[in-house]
Amino acid sequence: MALGEFDLIARYFHTAQGDDVALGIGDDAAIINVPSDQQLLVTTDTLNIGIHFPENTCAADIAYKTVAVNVSDLAAMGARPTWATLNLSLPAVDETWLSEFALSLRQQLEAFGVKLIGGDTTRGALSLTLTVMGICAPGRALRRDGAQLHDLIVLTGTVGDARLGLDLALNRRTINDFAHRDYLLQRLNRPCARLSHSAIIKSYAHAAIDVSDGVAQDLNHIINRSQCGAIIDLEKLPLSSALRFHLDEPTAWHYALCGGDDYELLLTLSASDWPVVEQQLFQHGLNATVIGRIESDGGLRCHHRGKPVTIAQQGFQHF
Amino acid sequence: MALGEFDLIARYFHTAQGDDVALGIGDDAAIINVPSDQQLLVTTDTLNIGIHFPENTCAADIAYKTVAVNVSDLAAMGARPTWATLNLSLPAVDETWLSEFALSLRQQLEAFGVKLIGGDTTRGALSLTLTVMGICAPGRALRRDGAQLHDLIVLTGTVGDARLGLDLALNRRTINDFAHRDYLLQRLNRPCARLSHSAIIKSYAHAAIDVSDGVAQDLNHIINRSQCGAIIDLEKLPLSSALRFHLDEPTAWHYALCGGDDYELLLTLSASDWPVVEQQLFQHGLNATVIGRIESDGGLRCHHRGKPVTIAQQGFQHF
Repeated sequence: MALGEFDLIARYFHTAQGDDVALGIGDDAAIINVPSDQQLLVTTDTLNIGIHFPENTCAADIAYKTVAVNVSDLAAMGARPTWATLNLSLPAVDETWLSEFALSLRQQLEAFGVKLIGGDTTRGALSLTLTVMGICAPGRALRRDGAQLHDLIVLTGTVGDARLGLDLALNRRTINDFAHRDYLLQRLNRPCARLSHSAIIKSYAHAAIDVSDGVAQDLNHIINRSQCGAIIDLEKLPLSSALRFHLDEPTAWHYALCGGDDYELLLTLSASDWPVVEQQLFQHGLNATVIGRIESDGGLRCHHRGKPVTIAQQGFQHF
Repeated sequence: MALGEFDLIARYFHTAQGDDVALGIGDDAAIINVPSDQQLLVTTDTLNIGIHFPENTCAADIAYKTVAVNVSDLAAMGARPTWATLNLSLPAVDETWLSEFALSLRQQLEAFGVKLIGGDTTRGALSLTLTVMGICAPGRALRRDGAQLHDLIVLTGTVGDARLGLDLALNRRTINDFAHRDYLLQRLNRPCARLSHSAIIKSYAHAAIDVSDGVAQDLNHIINRSQCGAIIDLEKLPLSSALRFHLDEPTAWHYALCGGDDYELLLTLSASDWPVVEQQLFQHGLNATVIGRIESDGGLRCHHRGKPVTIAQQGFQHF
């Protein structure tokens, strides 16, 4: 007999215990005790098959990415993720798929200290919506609107890799080097939410965003909300050795600026704070790079070795 | 030029102002000030085209129903809805559809005092996930697990109408009487979340649930969680005149017990509290009916004029 919705939930999803959850999965709503000295943060992302992940993506990777992209949003805000709800639309009940998905989801949520408190499972094209809540001391969250004139623009890790990984996943490009291929597909399917590094950044950054739609589009959100301009020095964009090896320079820049799905943190801070932030991030295993600076206006401009260049800035288009 | 995600959000969705929302739509996460003396409740429902609403449902009705089904969950918990996030997957940007949808959504959220604080819009098969948060005094929320031996089982309004409305929407049945037809389609497309009546019920009910999957399946959730049994007296099921007029008795019972999508409240309470609850609900424009009683065990059984009868109890199957 086919597994119904309620059997499915009971078998694969449950709420981890803790005093913060007064009532978890299994009623009309979950009941949460939010610490009275904290603000509540809420973020949500939907991942649809064929749009946000290729059709051949395995269940464990889909769960991994669903958690990562949402936790990444809270990392960019300097918040601690705490609770989540999952809306899962499935074309049919496939127990092998579900058990792989649920295991990976549980592992990833646990890794970030997040309890699953509710959700909805139903029939439909494969689609996942995770809504993640988190907490932060009042007024201490990082926002997009705090960039200040002369701030340095800093990027963690490398960018553009997920876009090249997508080329591989969609068989639009072939790379025989196993290590490079594996690295790029991991960057696409298992992005790393920079949560542990967010605590360092939080003490210094004036503005932050996670790079989900490409550096150009996401930096544009910061300068629009902060009412300023920015210059990116193309030669400073942090590119992995895999990206450098397989792409010519203009393509690599394009993937870095417009590729999306990297989930690195993009932040602005005072030049005087940069050395200590760079060192602290490095001590926690993460390279960060200054890629430009905040200007008073002029939108987002790109320079190459000090000279203005024109480059397409269009990031991931959702429609 | 096609409207991009960010233009679309800016044009159609925004956050109503208030001290409770420190940061609304437009950053990586929203920031909320939850009252320190309240618990937070979270519920979420996904509505997929062709599953939860017929393909010919208009945008305004889809928005109406999306809000109603989620607010109904919080009504069943005795909570006050406050904030919501919307995940909207669309096959393409249709500005006529979007403006109708957004207007109806805003009106419905405002009607229930809910502020839209964030979400995600993306491409995909038409699908809507609303996550609604609410607040409630600690320990005062209504749950499914509180039913007590000898409690009366009470149902607000009438049930089965939405199921007959679905027959009409899918052209599986024809009803020429305009008033009946209009009533039944309204019950399907514009269900009434019993939020204002929830405050009355809350002071007396031992357990409650909203009827989304049919009386039988939803009452089963109460008796399973409360570790008891229940008897329903079929002749007491509250049926609208439209349902009585167009269906024979066994079909009407089946639609009432198993149809789903009614969003009435099903609750259990002490017999001694029933007269005052009935009167207060009636004074607030809502009929309520005693349909049975809680037993010590024996699962869910149906009686007809005092005699046991066997009737299929299967409610809406999500898969």
